[in-house]
Parts: sequence; structure tokens; C-alpha cells
Amino acid sequence: MIIARSAQELREALSTKNGSVGFVPTMGALHIGHRTLIERARRENDVVVVSIFVNPTQFLPGEDLSKYPRREEADFKICELSGVDVLFYPDVNAMYGDDEVRIVAPDVRGYILEGASRPGHFDGVLTVVMKLLNIVRPARAYFGKKDAQQLVLITQMCENFFMDVTVIPCDTVRENDGLALSSRNVYLSVSERNDALKLSASLKRSTKLVMQGTLDACTIKEQMLAILEPLDVEYVAIVNRSFESIEQVIIGNTIILVAARVGTTRLIDNVWM
Amino acid sequence: MIIARSAQELREALSTKNGSVGFVPTMGALHIGHRTLIERARRENDVVVVSIFVNPTQFLPGEDLSKYPRREEADFKICELSGVDVLFYPDVNAMYGDDEVRIVAPDVRGYILEGASRPGHFDGVLTVVMKLLNIVRPARAYFGKKDAQQLVLITQMCENFFMDVTVIPCDTVRENDGLALSSRNVYLSVSERNDALKLSASLKRSTKLVMQGTLDACTIKEQMLAILEPLDVEYVAIVNRSFESIEQVIIGNTIILVAARVGTTRLIDNVWM
Repeated sequence: MIIARSAQELREALSTKNGSVGFVPTMGALHIGHRTLIERARRENDVVVVSIFVNPTQFLPGEDLSKYPRREEADFKICELSGVDVLFYPDVNAMYGDDEVRIVAPDVRGYILEGASRPGHFDGVLTVVMKLLNIVRPARAYFGKKDAQQLVLITQMCENFFMDVTVIPCDTVRENDGLALSSRNVYLSVSERNDALKLSASLKRSTKLVMQGTLDACTIKEQMLAILEPLDVEYVAIVNRSFESIEQVIIGNTIILVAARVGTTRLIDNVWM
Repeated sequence: MIIARSAQELREALSTKNGSVGFVPTMGALHIGHRTLIERARRENDVVVVSIFVNPTQFLPGEDLSKYPRREEADFKICELSGVDVLFYPDVNAMYGDDEVRIVAPDVRGYILEGASRPGHFDGVLTVVMKLLNIVRPARAYFGKKDAQQLVLITQMCENFFMDVTVIPCDTVRENDGLALSSRNVYLSVSERNDALKLSASLKRSTKLVMQGTLDACTIKEQMLAILEPLDVEYVAIVNRSFESIEQVIIGNTIILVAARVGTTRLIDNVWM
């Protein structure tokens, strides 16, 4: 596995490889969710690039940038064992300069739900993803559905800017008890982890309701909130694939989302149906 | 010459061609300045693509979008005679959708001088240039030095986003009497055209001063303003290649700029030294 620490080193590393490039951008603290993305990239491409970069511009003032989990050695090992060809591991100066041109998220889609809770967050996400995609120039880039709004906005950015890459949405990986994998789960105490199960439980309930024929968004949200109730719920939302609020679930074009704070840890989860 | 009206048509047209692509993005109303860019692209590349697109997002409310000169037939003829291989001539729906991801210019460099007079103008310029560069994917893209700040910001965007293109700065083309060519010159009456010569005259004076050893920015600006005086001057500025104000001219790293209104027409001009 080659480790590249700048765009130039990355380009040099790739110039020695042939075939299609699959790319998995991450912020490190790799878990089984990431491994699943990497394994899929491994199956579908000749060359696999993973990036590890805790992107400062997507953290808002007061957010957990400095305490975001960093586990360099374990992450490198996971990448190596997963058959990664090139690990892109830049420092912030290799990615950002002074007074830069930036990307901003769409006025509506970029500033609702996650964007309302974290205004400017998606500007930072899109800016770094555009940089990474242009550095790596992959045929396919792999993103988890757990960050649903991020995935939709990145896909839209690639369309809006006619970028030559296929964005591959990948299913959320869960613990046996339903908890969606997240690097932030390490912040949870035992009792908080138990409370956190209410997110996936509420989504399981929503899926059951839809399968039984209940498509009304209000009814579904009410029943979800009944499960979530003891938590500090930020939103429960039912949207189409373009992130427009809908009143009736449309099978094949709906995402049901929840965001809640468990202790001081903010968690999100969703189902695509 | 192939005429492509969408990104897809453009990609299809280019898939039939081999070799390096040179690209000249324009807003039409082509003059000798554009022809000079196209001829240079023709000399330096195997395939030449010109785009004609009057980009609405770089016009501010109240600016001259609707009356911006449009001369489809003459423009097509000029492109054909200049040996253009593919003309990209999209309508607005082929370039923009609803609620899009956008580019914003740097906080400082993007909002001084032209950016102060036309706040948001460069956001629109950078957004459309990013789209066009990603659609055409040229080896080299040609821009005139007359739009100096635009050229510097586009070059910066390509660096900030690790884009795989070389931006080629091209000298301003002038009438025999010194007037810099611009599609907006058609707005000038005979007497206004005469007044407009004061812009190039003031720059000629600045060049002469520098050649005589006067490097102090204040002195140069004063003497330029004495020539420009009867006009409605918006700014006279002396900056380095990063568009930072400087007190002393540095040969090889200075741009002297002027913007003034002649009648209702806003004109800009500059020298690079």
C-alpha cells in the first residue's frame, strides 16, 4: 500500500497503476461500515484509493473537530488488510490555502435538516469532496447512505458540475441490535448506547407501517416520535430522493430520517424505501 | 465545425476527435480579441472548442444581461473561419438546474475592485467556468488578460480544486488608438468612444512612469487620475499577481488596473508589468 501525503504524491502513485479507480473518502476512525465500502470498491475496480482527512471546513465553531476520533495506526492497518492500493493521507496545508474559492450547498436542500442544525456544514463537505474527486479522478466514488443528505448533495454536485465520476450509494451497516455504525458511537456510554437504539427502532417501526400500507407521513412520524420521545429529537423527516418534504410515502422514492441527541452526542439514522 | 447544444452532444462530438483539446470560453459577440485567443488555441492544440454562452449568473440585477450583444450568425461564421472544431452553444437549461450547488469567489480577492462594484459577479463567473471546464475537459483554456481579476480568480480556482487544466493568459488586443477591445464597446457613441481612450492613455502613462523608474504606487495613481479626471472613475489600483494592493511596483509581479464609466457604459482596462 502506497501512502501519499499530497495531491502530487497521489498522482505519482496512481501513474504507476492501470485500470479503473474506485475511491472511498473517509475521515478515519474506520469501522465495519467503511470496510464494507472499501470491499465493494475492491470488487468493482482495478485500483482502490482511500482518503483519510478530518476536514476542518465541515465542522462548525464549537463542534467536535479537535476531539474527533483519530486512530492513524489502526486505520492504516485496516486499509492494508482491505487491499487498498493507495492511501491518501494529506495534512490540512496539502488541501487548503489562504482565501480560497469555495463550494456552497444549494440554498434550499443544503440548509434544511442537517443543514439547518449545522449551517455551512455541507459547504465544507462539498468543497473537500470536489477537491478529493479532482485529485483522485476515480471512475466510482463510494458513499454511505447513512449520511443521506450528504450523499444526495454530493450526487447533485457531480451532476451540476458535469463531473466524470459515478457516485455509488452504499447501504448502512448496523450492529446486530440495529445501531447504525458511526465513528461517533465511541462517545456513547453504556446507557446512552442503549438509548441510541431508539433511532433504529423508530425507523424499523416506520418500515413496518409502510409495509402494512400506512403511507401517510404524519401518521408515520407520530408513531416514530412515540418511540423516540425520551430523547432530545432534532427532527423526524420524510422526503423524496431530492430531499423535498412529502405527505405520502412513495415506494422507491422516499427517505425517512431521524436526528437526535443522546447525552451530548448527536446521532442520525435513516431508511431508504 | 460541429455545433453541440448540450454537455452530452459536446462529449459525443469530442469522442470522434483525437489529441489535446484547447478551449476558448466566450459570451459571443466575438471580436478580434476572441479571434486572437482562438488562433492561439488553434496553434497549440489538436482540437479547438469554443463556447458561446451568455451566462446569466454573472450578471447582477439591473445589469445588461438582456441587452448584452448577441450575434449568433456572425459568431458562428467567425468560429468556422478560425478553424474551430466544435462550437459549444448551450441554452440556459443545458447549463443550470434548480437549487444548484454553486461556487463562491474568495472572501477577499473575490470582493474587491470588480467584485466590490459587482458583488457576486465572480461567483457566477467561477460557477460557469467550472461547469464548462468539466464539460470540455481541455488540456489548455485561454483567457484574456483584459479581465485580469477574472483570470487570476479562475487560475486560483483551478489550483484550489486541483483541476487538470492549464490556464493560458493572453494579451489584451487593442485598436490602433489604444482602446482595448470589448464586446461592450458597441454601446459607445462617437464622443464616448473618444472619452474611452483616456483609460488606455492613463495606463500608457503609468507604463512610461515605471520605465522611467517611478515605482511609487501613489505617484503613478495620481498621474493616471489626472488623465482620467473628466470620467466617472470607479477605481485605479496597483496590485500584485495575487491581487494584493502594493505600495511599490514590482516589475514582473504587478497589474495596474482602471475601471470607469463612460456615459452608461462601464469599461475596464489594465497593464501587466
